[in-house]
Amino acid sequence: MVFHMQKINIAQKFGLFSGYWSPKIVGEINDPYVKLVKLKGEFVWHSHEKEDELFLVVKGKLVIKLRDGDIELNEGDFFVVPKGVEHMPVADEEAHVLLLEPKTTLNTGNLRNERTVEAEWI
Amino acid sequence: MVFHMQKINIAQKFGLFSGYWSPKIVGEINDPYVKLVKLKGEFVWHSHEKEDELFLVVKGKLVIKLRDGDIELNEGDFFVVPKGVEHMPVADEEAHVLLLEPKTTLNTGNLRNERTVEAEWI
Repeated sequence: MVFHMQKINIAQKFGLFSGYWSPKIVGEINDPYVKLVKLKGEFVWHSHEKEDELFLVVKGKLVIKLRDGDIELNEGDFFVVPKGVEHMPVADEEAHVLLLEPKTTLNTGNLRNERTVEAEWI
Repeated sequence: MVFHMQKINIAQKFGLFSGYWSPKIVGEINDPYVKLVKLKGEFVWHSHEKEDELFLVVKGKLVIKLRDGDIELNEGDFFVVPKGVEHMPVADEEAHVLLLEPKTTLNTGNLRNERTVEAEWI
């Protein structure tokens, strides 16, 4: 465990990285990690067998495609994708998103492919 | 479990209640709850034996007093109070705060007193 007994400014942390679709860990609370990620374009359809995943839009707009409809999120909106539900995040323009999810969560869920990354602390 | 398969707008939810120091549940991700709370004035010194607690300032300013110093949080800052660490939140003016904490977390931690409230979904 990395112990961060300091305050975190979200905007400052977003300034530390530039790549898309590569979540960075900025906090933890018992099990879950707090992650920040920049999104642009389309991701891949996937689901997480055991983990719910919260998407909070900090900047920009994000669409979370579900098999039965789209969830459109603006700044200050969040949505929890329940475990087992297939989803694909899409951002036409760069979006800054805060994620909350159990430590075991892999960004591509039940798949391992070229979009899979291991999150690191920043 | 209350199942909320819908997006949540944080500002809209803050508009649904007015009392201070009474967290409302607006989401859950596996174990933890997402709660919103309005703070004004001083709370009480307490700690949570088993639960880390994240405070994210959505509006206003919040000081989290610790026994060895103060953490001053502005909008967009968050801080995780680790389990077992005594703390007292203080807000000179009304502050809107998002909390992340395990479901077992009681607002007054290891104490039950006149400030203790049970969080409810809104």
